[in-house]
Parts: sequence; structure tokens; C-alpha cells
Amino acid sequence: MPHRTRVAIIGAGPAGLLLAHLLDRRGIDSIVIDSRTREEIETTIRAGILEQGTVEVLAGTGASTRVLEAGHRHDGIELAFAGERHRIDFADAVGRGVWLYPQHEVLKDLIAARLAAGQDLRFGVEALAVENADGDRPRVIARDADGEPVEIEAEFVVGADGSRSVARTAVTGSQTGGYFREYPFAWFGILCEAPPSAEELIYSNSPNGFALISQRSPSVQRMYFQCDPDVDPAAYSETELWDTLQSRVPGELAEGPIFQRDVLRFRSFVAHELRRGRVALVGDAAHTVPPTGAKGMNLAVADVVLLGEAIPALLGGDDRLIDAYPETALQRIWKAQHFSWWMTSMLHRAPDASDFDDLRQLGELRSVTGSRAGRTYLAEAYTGWPLAGADAVLG
Amino acid sequence: MPHRTRVAIIGAGPAGLLLAHLLDRRGIDSIVIDSRTREEIETTIRAGILEQGTVEVLAGTGASTRVLEAGHRHDGIELAFAGERHRIDFADAVGRGVWLYPQHEVLKDLIAARLAAGQDLRFGVEALAVENADGDRPRVIARDADGEPVEIEAEFVVGADGSRSVARTAVTGSQTGGYFREYPFAWFGILCEAPPSAEELIYSNSPNGFALISQRSPSVQRMYFQCDPDVDPAAYSETELWDTLQSRVPGELAEGPIFQRDVLRFRSFVAHELRRGRVALVGDAAHTVPPTGAKGMNLAVADVVLLGEAIPALLGGDDRLIDAYPETALQRIWKAQHFSWWMTSMLHRAPDASDFDDLRQLGELRSVTGSRAGRTYLAEAYTGWPLAGADAVLG
Repeated sequence: MPHRTRVAIIGAGPAGLLLAHLLDRRGIDSIVIDSRTREEIETTIRAGILEQGTVEVLAGTGASTRVLEAGHRHDGIELAFAGERHRIDFADAVGRGVWLYPQHEVLKDLIAARLAAGQDLRFGVEALAVENADGDRPRVIARDADGEPVEIEAEFVVGADGSRSVARTAVTGSQTGGYFREYPFAWFGILCEAPPSAEELIYSNSPNGFALISQRSPSVQRMYFQCDPDVDPAAYSETELWDTLQSRVPGELAEGPIFQRDVLRFRSFVAHELRRGRVALVGDAAHTVPPTGAKGMNLAVADVVLLGEAIPALLGGDDRLIDAYPETALQRIWKAQHFSWWMTSMLHRAPDASDFDDLRQLGELRSVTGSRAGRTYLAEAYTGWPLAGADAVLG
Repeated sequence: MPHRTRVAIIGAGPAGLLLAHLLDRRGIDSIVIDSRTREEIETTIRAGILEQGTVEVLAGTGASTRVLEAGHRHDGIELAFAGERHRIDFADAVGRGVWLYPQHEVLKDLIAARLAAGQDLRFGVEALAVENADGDRPRVIARDADGEPVEIEAEFVVGADGSRSVARTAVTGSQTGGYFREYPFAWFGILCEAPPSAEELIYSNSPNGFALISQRSPSVQRMYFQCDPDVDPAAYSETELWDTLQSRVPGELAEGPIFQRDVLRFRSFVAHELRRGRVALVGDAAHTVPPTGAKGMNLAVADVVLLGEAIPALLGGDDRLIDAYPETALQRIWKAQHFSWWMTSMLHRAPDASDFDDLRQLGELRSVTGSRAGRTYLAEAYTGWPLAGADAVLG
């Protein structure tokens, strides 16, 4: 006997949980499932640069008001190259900013809100397939932590199940069907106990490769440097890690004990289709961006804002917004794919880069930072283009 | 017995002739030599988009006032993609424009002015080497059209002798010493008898590759399309050429008899050094850019404006400007290299481009054309950044 609900959501990441929240505000019940435990979800440390529009949606819909207190507003970033640091002043260029607020903190807020409201959120339930996409009652086939089968029948199914999405097969016909780009490098990330080395993020182009200096709290910092994708995180001593970071950023970094290290691979992906019948994909299930430029979670929120209006309309008999969803979402997705590729290619050193390529990069960085229009163009993308549909979900 | 002059200039292209003109305005004699005949120089058809600053220098110093009458001011360009044309309005974005005025017309003006003033300009004289760069009296070793040796001794030698520069060896130590980038495509150019198909240039990104629609006169048009660099210009029928062009540009092109066809190879190059002792390189001898974005002649003028002030200062005993010449020139050269690479890579289809690459390009074109800041950033570069030293040579 299947469970019944109006909307079945696979994945308790930011996309799935925010969508459940937006639907609840419209009085639409949903079931959210995730194969992970609550603890796994809440303790997986992820970066978090939230566009101003993302924060407005999170705070304005009550999904997370803590972002405004515990997050840190940043009104700019620094681009470093040729031994100098150049600030991109977002407040001056576009009158908007971003918030530093890690993704797992967003998740804690969303999970707490959902559970406090007594709504259906099931951890340890692994989706295996989505069936009947083209019918009126699509189904999620899953199994729980004990291996027992679970079936959820709904009026609409949303695949918010990340880059290894199961729902993607029901939409695109295959789990891998999409547009890909691989990059010949990765990020080596560390968490360390140290005071901040800068007030804002520093994106640094150096002859040895890229580095990013980020912050987590007054006593914990997050930093990254470009590395070979096949590097063993344990292969570096702490001294080597600090020497690498110090050599790639102008100015002195405050050092401290490194208590976490990981390697983030780079990948660009967009699914061939974002919707089939009564199944749609959002977030990483629909697209992956490289981390430079911090578009991942923001793009997921942009998808969800569209569905937060389109699904209620469809369930009320109006299919115009759900029909428009793929094209509307893809306009932003491809701009964000471009922005992420641009920030990546402008700041990283490709393994096969020639001296010409290095000097052209510096010419580009001088052009962008030396032009108010260039800085504004970058700031518009970084702080986020206007969110289509935001007025509707905030209203 | 060598000829003696104050400045020996190798190459009667726009760079060499404009420099001779600027020096003459300061009362400094020069000898200009070129291996070609006057007719060869004046009849080699070359494109010509002149930045506003270039026109101000040409007209303001009396080098060419005809550009203001015979040239056509363009206040924008169109970027075409995904079946639509999007105008970049230069006048609105930056309050500046460009002039369509072919390079060989500039050359006719410069040659006529120089000869009318009775100044030394020698055609058919081929430079073989530059000697004594590090001494007080560098020399140009050459031979005339009869094979007789010619030697010119000067206080300064300028290599304005194009991409196969002989002077480069004296400056960089080798004729090929520089930063290179090759591109996997070329432009197939045609001249045809037809009315204009558009009032401004159309740069078109299409699934089949790039095309550029340009104008020459009310009855003659210049058009280009991206092709394989090894293509034989004679291999296409006129019908095939028109079919190719029509398929790559939204809207209908007015057709007519094609009376010239050529293949332009793409190459980016910057010499390792721009000056050694009393020898300096300008224009194509110092750098080559791909034609997308039309920076070639403008960059040559920017170099010459710097030397038009630095050489008189040096001959007057002040070497500060000539010492600063390479770094000052290179700031603009690398920005222009980037801009040319950017316009090229945004608009052309690489032979190995994936579907992801094509869609990312469209995301970029939508980002740039959809943002006032993006359009302004492009317009600033296309119409030309401020010309360092222009006030001095115009004063």
C-alpha cells in the first residue's frame, strides 16, 4: 500500500527542503525523503556564499531567519594577481551584497523548521526509481534503512537528489544524460583554527595556481588551493599546506592547526531535460557548477523559486508555469555555467597553460578590475541576477 | 658612406608613417624605408575599424583629415546569436564610437602627406639587419630594388616592419622570440558588389561557425566567415559562399558578384622585448592580434603615440619615457590581446567544441548583451581605452 501525498520530494538538501517549505506555505503537503541520516546531512561541511536574492527568499519566507543574525554580509571580494589585491566593491557597483553562511547551517534551519511543524521528513530512505512520470500519479520507489520497500504516490515528484540523481533517469532517460565539461584540476580545501586573514574572500591568481581565502568564524578559517585532481589529501604536511597557500596569496596569512582537509573535484553538468510530465529536476540533480563563483546552492534556490509557484499552479489546473519551467530555469543555469567557467578560467592556471595564456589572464584581470563596467558586470553575476518568480513566492 | 638621419624607420605601414609624421611635427628628421612599392602598399586591401582615439590622433595631427569626411562613424555593432541580433550601443554605453575607414586609405593619406612635404620615404628598399642597438648610432643595413647596399645611420631605429620584422632580431635576439597563440581556424574574406546588408558590423555566432558582415561603400561590401585555415580560396563556388554566409547570419544578406576572396590566418603574438638600447618595435613587429575586435592598427597607433613623445625626449637627453615605453605599451597590448581572444572565443566555434561549450557561449552572449555593464565593458574595449600620451602628441 503506497504512501500518498501531493508532492514527493527526493532529497533533503537545500533545494528539496526549501521547496517543501514553499509548498507548505501554499497549503500543499509533501513527503521529503533522503538516504542519509539527519546527522550526516547536518555535519557535512559545505561552503556557503548566498546571493542577496537567496537570503531574501530564505528570510522572507521564514525558511531561515538565522541567516540574518548568524551569517556575515560581505559587500565585496578581492581579486589578487601579479602580487596585488584589487577589491570588487559590490555595494558601490550594484548596491547588493552576499552572505557568508555555510550550507549545513541553512540545512539545520530548514530541517528544524520542518520537524517543528510536524511535517513529513524521512531520513534513511533511499530512492531507487521514479515511475509513471507521464501519468497523473507518479511514484517514488524506495527502501528504508531496514531494507524494507517504500512506495510514495503523488501528484508531482521532484528530484532534488543531487549529482547522482535517481530521478534524472525518469526525466532524461538515463542517469548521465546531459552536457558535461571536465576540468584538469581540483581544489584542496582545509579548515584551520586561526584568526581571519582578510575580512572578505580573496580569489587569487598566482603563477603557481589559484587559491581562495575564505572565512568560517572568528577562530576557524576555510582556505583552498588549486591542485591535481588525483592528489592524496594526506600527502601534504601542514607545513607544506601553509607554504603552498602563503606562496599563492599576496600578504601574510595567519596560520593555525589544520583539522580538516578534502579534495573537491570540478565538474560542469546540465541535464538534457529538466522535466518530464509530472517529474522535475532541481539543484544538483539538474546541474553542477564548479565552485569558483559559488553558484551551486544559489542556482538550486532559483530553480525552487520557480517550482514553488509552478507546482501549486499545476495542481490547481494551470500548467503554463510548469511548461515554462525548463526554459526559464535554463536561461539562468547557462548564465551561471558561464560565470562559473569564467571565474574558473580567469583565476586558475591550466596544466598546459603557455606563457601567452598566463599574460593574457593578467590582461583580463587588469581589464576587469580597472573598469567600473567590468567590476559591475562581475558583481551583478556574483551577487545574483534578479530571481524570476521571487515576488510570487514571497507574496 | 651611410645615409645619416635622426630616426630610421623600417616599414611604411600605418605605424612607421604615422611615427615619421609625429616626429616631423617636432622638427625631427627621419628616413622611412619599405621593401614594397608604393602601389603595393596602397592597393593591398585591409580592413579598418579605427578607435575614436586613433581618429583623434590622425585628424588632430594632420596625418589624415580625410578620415572625417570619407570614413563612416559607427555608434555600435550587432552581436547575433541563437537567431537574433542584439545591438551594442556604443554611444549610449560610453559616448564614443569607431570609424570604418580602410587601412589602405589611411596609408594613402600618410604617404601623400609625407611626399608633399618633401620628406624622405624610400620604396623598394629592403631592410636586412639592424646593428649597434646598444651604441649611440644604430644602423639599418638594407638593399635597394637594384640589389645595391644601403646603410642608414641614425640616433634611433624603429622597427615598424610588420609580423616578419627584421628589427625584432636586434631587439629580442631572435626573429621569433615572443609569446604565441595559434587558433584552429581562419577567416574566409570576400569583397562583393552589393548594397549594404546592415548599417553596422554584425558579429554572428552560429552553430556552423562565426561570420562577420562589414561594409566598404554603398556598392561594395566586405564579409567574412570562419573556415579551416588550410582551405583553398578557389574551392568554393559563389553559390556556396553565399549559402555559407546566409546560413550563419539572422536576416537576409543582399548578394552580388564576388570579386575578391582571401583567407586570413589567426595568430596572437607579443615579442619578448619591445626595446633594446636605441631600437624599439611598434605595431605588428611587436605584436599580432586575431582580427576579431579590430585591434591591430589601433594598437600600432597606441605604440606610436608613446614613441612620438619618448623619442624626442630621448634625443633631447631625457630617457625616462623611452625606458617606460615597453611596460606602458604592454599594459595596453595585453588588454587588447585579451579582448581579441575574448571576442574570438565568444563568437567562433572551436572544431572540438562540445554541446556544453556551445551552450555556455550562448549563456555568455546572453549575459553580455543582457547587462548594461556587460555591454559597456565590451564597448570600452571596442571603441578603445584612453590613449596614454595622446595629449602630448596632439599638443
